[in-house]
Amino acid sequence: MESSAERPKAVVLLSGGVDSTTCLAIAKSQGYALYALSFRYGQRHLQELDRAARIAVRFGAERHIVVDFDMRTIGGSVLVGEGEIPKERSAAEIASGGIPPTYVPARNTIFLAFALAWAEVLGARDIFIGVNAVDFSGYPDCRPAFIEAFQRVAETGTRMGSQGSPVRIHAPLLRMNKAEIIRTGLALGVDYGMTHSCYDPPPDGPACGRCDSCLLRRKGFAEAGIPDPIPYPD
Amino acid sequence: MESSAERPKAVVLLSGGVDSTTCLAIAKSQGYALYALSFRYGQRHLQELDRAARIAVRFGAERHIVVDFDMRTIGGSVLVGEGEIPKERSAAEIASGGIPPTYVPARNTIFLAFALAWAEVLGARDIFIGVNAVDFSGYPDCRPAFIEAFQRVAETGTRMGSQGSPVRIHAPLLRMNKAEIIRTGLALGVDYGMTHSCYDPPPDGPACGRCDSCLLRRKGFAEAGIPDPIPYPD
Repeated sequence: MESSAERPKAVVLLSGGVDSTTCLAIAKSQGYALYALSFRYGQRHLQELDRAARIAVRFGAERHIVVDFDMRTIGGSVLVGEGEIPKERSAAEIASGGIPPTYVPARNTIFLAFALAWAEVLGARDIFIGVNAVDFSGYPDCRPAFIEAFQRVAETGTRMGSQGSPVRIHAPLLRMNKAEIIRTGLALGVDYGMTHSCYDPPPDGPACGRCDSCLLRRKGFAEAGIPDPIPYPD
Repeated sequence: MESSAERPKAVVLLSGGVDSTTCLAIAKSQGYALYALSFRYGQRHLQELDRAARIAVRFGAERHIVVDFDMRTIGGSVLVGEGEIPKERSAAEIASGGIPPTYVPARNTIFLAFALAWAEVLGARDIFIGVNAVDFSGYPDCRPAFIEAFQRVAETGTRMGSQGSPVRIHAPLLRMNKAEIIRTGLALGVDYGMTHSCYDPPPDGPACGRCDSCLLRRKGFAEAGIPDPIPYPD
């Protein structure tokens, strides 16, 4: 393996879920030195940060940092404690294009803004984000037009952009469905037993099995024809 | 005056300095109900938050919130404690187009990302930011192209944008110089004695008088032919 000094640096947004972990594996397979970035923003599912830390170590990340901000100051999502997390919605409902109550306003814009800041400080030319527009079609900040728009922000709003070498935003999962994401990750050696997806984990286990995120994950493993390595209550 | 229920809401980024305070006055003069947004991000000049709170009250803001995040996790700027703040630079040096060490990586992208989130939660269709491209030509995230790029993010990455009524980003100071900004604010009743500009205030006073921000402010008042109401050591 090349030493980290010789590899280009990439900032990878890492929540510890299936998508961001697969994205980390893709960045690694492309030869990048990995700088993993997570957030403690008031989310209910804090288990994901512990998973993200372990996953960053497993993939040999050069660094993993957690930026704190309190989204509860702003509010607007069940994920930061306002109201009930929906359960047992059908895949059709989840994929209907309606924006679910688990949408956190402008979350990916905030995440990418911090990634852009860290990329500037590191001198990293590449940012990876594991958004996908197929399963999460209801989230406006998971769509191709949003990624393209943020690319322009990176080109115009940073020191590197103004010097003619802007950061590139990579969203390699954008057009994959969950089964394709899982197959890609398995081919790259991802252990999905390390990942965490649940929006509302019970006190005694890793996943409720019934929130949108659990349902999409389980559907993905089922379609890929592979058993999900994490346990569910049912 | 109309009641707040009848006025459109605007999120206004408010640092408590000359520019953002003038921007708040402009938003008020245009009939908006004001939602002021400040940040505690590890800046040395924490006095600005106290000023921002008082200014928000003076202008009758409906709410003023402070979002916390720690930019020191990411680093990259003398404003968050890394190295020396430059002093006694000439106006020509400041306006040279070089990016100064007081540049905080992607700061306005981060600020606008949070403003966008809060606008979505409030149902506000307008965001005001007091950037200007004349005096701060060295800051890439104070330029028109950046504001236009972020406008596209607001259109593509939010619930309101996907529903056809995106937030509009207003940057009314973009093409003004500091003297024009000050004259505009005075005409709208701004008391600049309440504002705070210094990057590196001494323990015993509001301003050092010699950092870039103090120098631009003093030059602006001099060019406007108006005495700066705050005291300086020299």
